[in-house]
Amino acid sequence: MKAEFQTRRQFASDNNSGICPEAFAALAEANRGHAPGYGNDPWTAKASDMIRDVFETKCEVFFVFNGTAANSLALASLCQSYHSILCHEHAHVETAECGAPEFYSNGSKVLLLSGKDGKIESKAIEGAVMKRTDVHYPKPRALSITQATEMGTIYSLDELHKVIDTGKRFGLRVHMDGARFANAVASLGVSPKEITWQAGVDVLCFGGTKNGMAVGEAVVFFDTELAKEFDYRCKQAGQLASKMRFLSASWVGMLQNDAWLRHARHANSMAKRLETALAGIPKLKISFPCETNGVFVRMPQAVIKGLYEKGWKFYTHVSPDDARLMCSWDTTEEDVDAFVADAKSLAEKL
Amino acid sequence: MKAEFQTRRQFASDNNSGICPEAFAALAEANRGHAPGYGNDPWTAKASDMIRDVFETKCEVFFVFNGTAANSLALASLCQSYHSILCHEHAHVETAECGAPEFYSNGSKVLLLSGKDGKIESKAIEGAVMKRTDVHYPKPRALSITQATEMGTIYSLDELHKVIDTGKRFGLRVHMDGARFANAVASLGVSPKEITWQAGVDVLCFGGTKNGMAVGEAVVFFDTELAKEFDYRCKQAGQLASKMRFLSASWVGMLQNDAWLRHARHANSMAKRLETALAGIPKLKISFPCETNGVFVRMPQAVIKGLYEKGWKFYTHVSPDDARLMCSWDTTEEDVDAFVADAKSLAEKL
Amino acid sequence: MKAEFQTRRQFASDNNSGICPEAFAALAEANRGHAPGYGNDPWTAKASDMIRDVFETKCEVFFVFNGTAANSLALASLCQSYHSILCHEHAHVETAECGAPEFYSNGSKVLLLSGKDGKIESKAIEGAVMKRTDVHYPKPRALSITQATEMGTIYSLDELHKVIDTGKRFGLRVHMDGARFANAVASLGVSPKEITWQAGVDVLCFGGTKNGMAVGEAVVFFDTELAKEFDYRCKQAGQLASKMRFLSASWVGMLQNDAWLRHARHANSMAKRLETALAGIPKLKISFPCETNGVFVRMPQAVIKGLYEKGWKFYTHVSPDDARLMCSWDTTEEDVDAFVADAKSLAEKL
Amino acid sequence: MKAEFQTRRQFASDNNSGICPEAFAALAEANRGHAPGYGNDPWTAKASDMIRDVFETKCEVFFVFNGTAANSLALASLCQSYHSILCHEHAHVETAECGAPEFYSNGSKVLLLSGKDGKIESKAIEGAVMKRTDVHYPKPRALSITQATEMGTIYSLDELHKVIDTGKRFGLRVHMDGARFANAVASLGVSPKEITWQAGVDVLCFGGTKNGMAVGEAVVFFDTELAKEFDYRCKQAGQLASKMRFLSASWVGMLQNDAWLRHARHANSMAKRLETALAGIPKLKISFPCETNGVFVRMPQAVIKGLYEKGWKFYTHVSPDDARLMCSWDTTEEDVDAFVADAKSLAEKL
Repeated sequence: MKAEFQTRRQFASDNNSGICPEAFAALAEANRGHAPGYGNDPWTAKASDMIRDVFETKCEVFFVFNGTAANSLALASLCQSYHSILCHEHAHVETAECGAPEFYSNGSKVLLLSGKDGKIESKAIEGAVMKRTDVHYPKPRALSITQATEMGTIYSLDELHKVIDTGKRFGLRVHMDGARFANAVASLGVSPKEITWQAGVDVLCFGGTKNGMAVGEAVVFFDTELAKEFDYRCKQAGQLASKMRFLSASWVGMLQNDAWLRHARHANSMAKRLETALAGIPKLKISFPCETNGVFVRMPQAVIKGLYEKGWKFYTHVSPDDARLMCSWDTTEEDVDAFVADAKSLAEKL
Repeated sequence: MKAEFQTRRQFASDNNSGICPEAFAALAEANRGHAPGYGNDPWTAKASDMIRDVFETKCEVFFVFNGTAANSLALASLCQSYHSILCHEHAHVETAECGAPEFYSNGSKVLLLSGKDGKIESKAIEGAVMKRTDVHYPKPRALSITQATEMGTIYSLDELHKVIDTGKRFGLRVHMDGARFANAVASLGVSPKEITWQAGVDVLCFGGTKNGMAVGEAVVFFDTELAKEFDYRCKQAGQLASKMRFLSASWVGMLQNDAWLRHARHANSMAKRLETALAGIPKLKISFPCETNGVFVRMPQAVIKGLYEKGWKFYTHVSPDDARLMCSWDTTEEDVDAFVADAKSLAEKL
Repeated sequence: MKAEFQTRRQFASDNNSGICPEAFAALAEANRGHAPGYGNDPWTAKASDMIRDVFETKCEVFFVFNGTAANSLALASLCQSYHSILCHEHAHVETAECGAPEFYSNGSKVLLLSGKDGKIESKAIEGAVMKRTDVHYPKPRALSITQATEMGTIYSLDELHKVIDTGKRFGLRVHMDGARFANAVASLGVSPKEITWQAGVDVLCFGGTKNGMAVGEAVVFFDTELAKEFDYRCKQAGQLASKMRFLSASWVGMLQNDAWLRHARHANSMAKRLETALAGIPKLKISFPCETNGVFVRMPQAVIKGLYEKGWKFYTHVSPDDARLMCSWDTTEEDVDAFVADAKSLAEKL
Repeated sequence: MKAEFQTRRQFASDNNSGICPEAFAALAEANRGHAPGYGNDPWTAKASDMIRDVFETKCEVFFVFNGTAANSLALASLCQSYHSILCHEHAHVETAECGAPEFYSNGSKVLLLSGKDGKIESKAIEGAVMKRTDVHYPKPRALSITQATEMGTIYSLDELHKVIDTGKRFGLRVHMDGARFANAVASLGVSPKEITWQAGVDVLCFGGTKNGMAVGEAVVFFDTELAKEFDYRCKQAGQLASKMRFLSASWVGMLQNDAWLRHARHANSMAKRLETALAGIPKLKISFPCETNGVFVRMPQAVIKGLYEKGWKFYTHVSPDDARLMCSWDTTEEDVDAFVADAKSLAEKL
């Protein structure tokens, strides 16, 4: 099987990359002797403390297996089945989780908001909440914000405050899907607390996998009252790892010496390099401002096909003409430049 | 943190042990370059093929994060919400999964059967099915068998046939909870197919974690019709790993050169050594025949407390006087002998 | 309390009217002596047979308490939790059931189709199904058609065939929300079988309440294989009446001598009278063709407020300027004419 | 169909009887003109006020279609999916609702307590709660008490206090299944408040159907905080009647002039008459003290079969030798005496 894995890095998804060295070393380090199961081990305690340090507050931390579960468990803890969840129409919880939020919450309806660049606008929240107040319409209860968004854009601190304040004004609890939270923090250059609890986020799904881990996301409750019995919820949903240390150890490895931010910054800068170069190619058009680790570029079909033929892997998103190019902790300048060269050569032939 | 991990091996649980060398090496090996997510990678294909080889049939294979999820997803695929699941009153799905089967199936009731040594008896199945046939009683639809059982015992080939034949006679679909399937195969000395599809098992949850992996169980459908759309079910339940190769690679490592069986045989033999020695100590009494990697021994409270004070870790099970001592791939003769020596010394002081 | 009930008939909803004489007489008739519970009574058998006669086929019939339950139970029997249900964006199952389909099905996502006059168009079905085929998108499994629609329009026989044929081509099972099925049949002048099983409908929720009963809808499975164990599903969902005869007897009363069609025809003709008269008033504008028992008319706010002040009761729908005026089995020409006179007088004052 | 309904009254179930005159008259009375749907009508307001008068407190009242739904909705409002519900092993929610509590609550496990005469004992509650406190065991959250019990027995005021106090001590919320609450009140001769909120009951499912109505139970929240958003829960579950007045009007009819208690007293006294007479027949043996409207009597199979052959209808319960004879608002002394005569004659022939 080796041959198949020795291909160059690709732009298909940041989850196509492997385990970064810091996370892998921590796995190896944690693999000594016996440790109690289900999170009662020193690595899990340490990782939780480190996350509290990162956010500079006494939040409650839970490690689960993947992002779909993290989001759905968090939303289920905010909602009853007859509530509704407001999110952007392109949010991952709506478009890429096969109804997981509805399943975990036993039927909470996901109500869709539109907004430019993948970002929710306050008036859309107001519209959805004020639309109706009768029992035939599931009562809005949670606002789900994706930071960074599925379009690779980010809410500025000001945008975030506006959106969350609107949600809070209507009694909504606030969930942040942070599958690429590291990229957002790295890009904004803020402290993590500023764009989470200080802005009014109640629970954050802090992504580890796309940042360089094998498996495992952290659900971080800033409103610790909401975290009550969340351990039972995880257990019942098959999201409590018996050998938990192998999830939490990676977090220790990643948080030490700010590896998580370093990797995110690297991925972001690779994306910027890619965007800058592609923007200069005639017939290609950048669709969304490149603010984190993804580049969305509109390409003629001939270019897309040509790139596929040359062995490049990436997905189109939103429309068949919109290529989504994701950079990762292990993307290199050579990868970027090789891709750009191929794209340029194909575009020039048109 | 190192100090805490450099303690000797314990008998608390086979999930307190770490990752065995074969699984770890495979993880390292898989950590090269990029690979497609969600199971579309060569390691997952290879692991699935290897499992098909192990069972000598064209079964369908899915990798999920843990045993609770594996069991619950499998049972949910056998049942509608108004069906019931028959299992032993000490089955893991009943006693240790916090209602996960009910949650995943949206309400399927778990009906309890009693039986000696943790094993279901045919007449108990018949009793539960024949008890009532009206719509006020959830219709029995699935029979869940644990092999090896929670008491460390195993169904002989003959016992298995009897129990499954009874279930089939009443139209039940058959699930096998094989969290310790490896230990059962190693102990019985049969080929895996004999105690699964040839005996009538429709779906097996084949345990990897307790056998020496970090995370990941295989759900193996022998009735491939039942596997239809199971990938959607996994995805919706937050059980589809994005970096799937890190689950499946361990399986490749474990199945190569029969490491899975070698580890199971080792754990079984350590348990046998432990049982034999403990049986010779006055005032201790073996509760169940030691057939796999667990020893259940009734001890005076003073012995239990004394062992705890000496730093030994283990749980009591069923009653506070029944110590459950689990051996693992990394249990050594020295661990066993040291434990026995302490137990003996304590018992003799009474 | 009498005074409050002696107000004139209103146009708020066809469920604001009482029990029609035929249904009430049947209730009284059924109220003799003892009868077995849970549907094992002669009235239920008789009502089921009469429904089979109406549809001229061997369908399976179940009586449940209301329309929300009927629709949700039917859809849950067509779908697994990871499936999706396609319906018009203004369908009752989407807009007026507080997430009941998602709750009953344990998370099936409702995907919205747009289309003129409240009717689904084939290309919208194709769009939703072809959009994606990966496991991250809940697999389309059911097509829900409302006949008559929430806008009071109806699918012609030809339109119905086109829409259903498209659904079937993509493997969708077909549910018909027939809360106002009687009005549709009366308006189209077809035999019930033509717009149900002969057109490909798998399960119909045949509305009784809006037609003149106190409580109770019939779920009619034309694909009888799908009806398997539906009785268990009803029971578990709290939808199996113990004194079932009081639901089914009304059906006997309504189906005898075609009272159901007579009442529907009457309500339809009252709506037609209302539409014709309102269409002649300047500044009012009919929004949708009046094909059954509802009139949708765009009115200046001053007219709407004026009518409310005069004591008329009705709702606005879709927008605050769109009055929805529902006629019922007991609407009289005098009611209609009095309303029209008030509307005219208010409009002329503008 | 008339012939089939002109059979004599039977002892099969109190839900086999029809609508009592007071409830029927109220239905007829409510069937005038139009009324707003979904409970916004004067009958529903009136019935709710009357129930508040009955309990002499400001409770919150909701009307739903049947007892299964009432119990399940109430329990779901007390529990999250990972909680457990404690009830007697013969409770209706366990034995006769096809997993409805698990379905409505999305997986709350029902834990069974044993106890004499169908009544829970405090030590059983303590046992279930204290058994385990880890996340692998669903956290006990609700205690469900049936008053009168499925065996026709009743908790005395003292017994009730003991059981509820124990539950409260462990933080359990208290649900009372009062399908035959009227019979319990009538038998105990207490005021309704004494055996409900004054004893610590948080929510009561107050049965109407078995007391003489066509359909409809009242869910009465004494802890009004728990009633928050219960209207949404009912709506989503298909338990919000559009023509609600036809449920609530019956309650008005029944509560006026204490018809509900008069009927319950009558049914109780018929059961007492039956018990007294049967107790005097050799070879028959009363199984449980007759405290409400059911008589449980152990009979030789020949007697049971003989009674069936003579056309009597009743069920056996718990065992095939235990006849359950239910009296109802319409049971007459002649019915009782005729049954007794037949039983006596059959028993004497043995």
